[in-house]
Amino acid sequence: MSFVIKSTIERAEVWGRQFAEHLPDIPFRIWPDIGDPAEVEYLATWVPPEDLVERFPNLKVLFSVGAGIDQFDLAAIPPHIKIVRMIETGLTEGMVAYVQFAVRAIQRDMLRYASQQRAHVWQAYPVREAARFRVGVMGLGQLGVPVAYALRDMGYVVQGWARSAREIDKVQCFADEDGLRAFLASTDILICLLPLTAETTGILNHDLFAQLPRGASLVQCGRGRHLVTDDLIAALDSGQLASAILDVTDPEPLPADHPLWDRTDVLITPHIASMTPTESGGMAIVENIRRYRNGEAPVGLVDRRTGY
Amino acid sequence: MSFVIKSTIERAEVWGRQFAEHLPDIPFRIWPDIGDPAEVEYLATWVPPEDLVERFPNLKVLFSVGAGIDQFDLAAIPPHIKIVRMIETGLTEGMVAYVQFAVRAIQRDMLRYASQQRAHVWQAYPVREAARFRVGVMGLGQLGVPVAYALRDMGYVVQGWARSAREIDKVQCFADEDGLRAFLASTDILICLLPLTAETTGILNHDLFAQLPRGASLVQCGRGRHLVTDDLIAALDSGQLASAILDVTDPEPLPADHPLWDRTDVLITPHIASMTPTESGGMAIVENIRRYRNGEAPVGLVDRRTGY
Repeated sequence: MSFVIKSTIERAEVWGRQFAEHLPDIPFRIWPDIGDPAEVEYLATWVPPEDLVERFPNLKVLFSVGAGIDQFDLAAIPPHIKIVRMIETGLTEGMVAYVQFAVRAIQRDMLRYASQQRAHVWQAYPVREAARFRVGVMGLGQLGVPVAYALRDMGYVVQGWARSAREIDKVQCFADEDGLRAFLASTDILICLLPLTAETTGILNHDLFAQLPRGASLVQCGRGRHLVTDDLIAALDSGQLASAILDVTDPEPLPADHPLWDRTDVLITPHIASMTPTESGGMAIVENIRRYRNGEAPVGLVDRRTGY
Repeated sequence: MSFVIKSTIERAEVWGRQFAEHLPDIPFRIWPDIGDPAEVEYLATWVPPEDLVERFPNLKVLFSVGAGIDQFDLAAIPPHIKIVRMIETGLTEGMVAYVQFAVRAIQRDMLRYASQQRAHVWQAYPVREAARFRVGVMGLGQLGVPVAYALRDMGYVVQGWARSAREIDKVQCFADEDGLRAFLASTDILICLLPLTAETTGILNHDLFAQLPRGASLVQCGRGRHLVTDDLIAALDSGQLASAILDVTDPEPLPADHPLWDRTDVLITPHIASMTPTESGGMAIVENIRRYRNGEAPVGLVDRRTGY
């Protein structure tokens, strides 16, 4: 029995110390120095090796070091291997902070003021109060729900959409295809926090943008492939969308010659909205291995039917 | 007896309707159409006429349409005229929203990412959690206290400084000159929300910046003349300050050829952090005239000894 980490050196060093203290009976291996592959029961990684199943015949749990598992090819992973994604408070805190920044920036015209600064222009626009903005959160999971609460507490009118029906205090929730149209028609700022699945790939496209009120804005904190980039550019050019704040892109990293970079109505950050903090991420895996060995379900166990 | 407004047309129209409904016995005059000057008992304005006292011999209350009264020359206004500044929730909400934006932007390296975007560079930096930032609020009045609470609730370590001692729940408070040094030494992000008085003019200067930890940031939401601009530029150039977000400048508006505009470590907004909303601002004045006529102190009555 052993644990392998295939990730950054920083994470390997910190997690190694945590395992030595809390799970001293489990040998801790750092990729590519994995010891006997047949011993490996736990693997934590962002991108698994291509020959995952052949290389680790006795793998029991595959941990993602991030909140998502869209980088895993679920069809290629046998059903007896449990897949667990990262759920811990630092990841949530980071996303809440990023979305608070992004929505305040849109409310208060900050892309416009930044553009005016570059042109040396001092011109004020009327303040629009938070209560005049309807913010729609797509994806009501471990990140979407805390984000919805945080925005509600900042004074915005918040509503949510998810594939299946949800109930959230003081947040109107919509579900499935039928609910999507009503949700979009009443959303001034759209936040994407969906998981990436076959159903959500390309969901942020021309048809969706056309259903938003004219002049709406997008905050894209999901995965790059949720968004059809050409459709975003067309919606911005036509005025259907007023602005977009993108933390993820397709392709990613965004190539240096991509037309998105130079747009003053787009703010781009390099996939930093939410990153797993090293310390708390390691303890989340330690705790999940304990749960697994006690016969309990790990926190973040992925349902293979839904893909999250 | 009459009321004169000397402000924007939009404000005059809305306030005129409010006075007609709530104070129909007081003639409502819009500058320069003031009727008989000897009738004028109330004046609401940002900048009063230079011949205020001679022109309005029977003036009883001078209302500022903004939170500050530093634009008034107190020495030229006889003591029998009450001076009242604007205190209402929209002004507070606007300032809280602006500072939330600014502090999140600093925490999450947004000036750096905006600069990288202009250079077409995709490079991430580690997320620094809110709890690692000590935010220091200078000025603990009608705006400073709600700002301190909001930042505390976002996870920052918040402390405050004011001329006189204050007590605020879960916010360590410092006072007077003695407290200033300890306050500055433990402040990573400094928020200026001071009133502009003889004592605070030029307070944000070389000596003050030198007492902050190296690499601190400034959020300047006070008045332009709190800040010695050349000292700010020197502190940024030396690395003593990492960044600054300025909503006010000296001079203001900032001239088109000013060197601040082109700095990537400075974000400039055109004095929009907090603006009195038309509707609620008018009702605040209606309510204060009622209080005054009932012999109660208006909300926001200025103490001429302190200047706020």
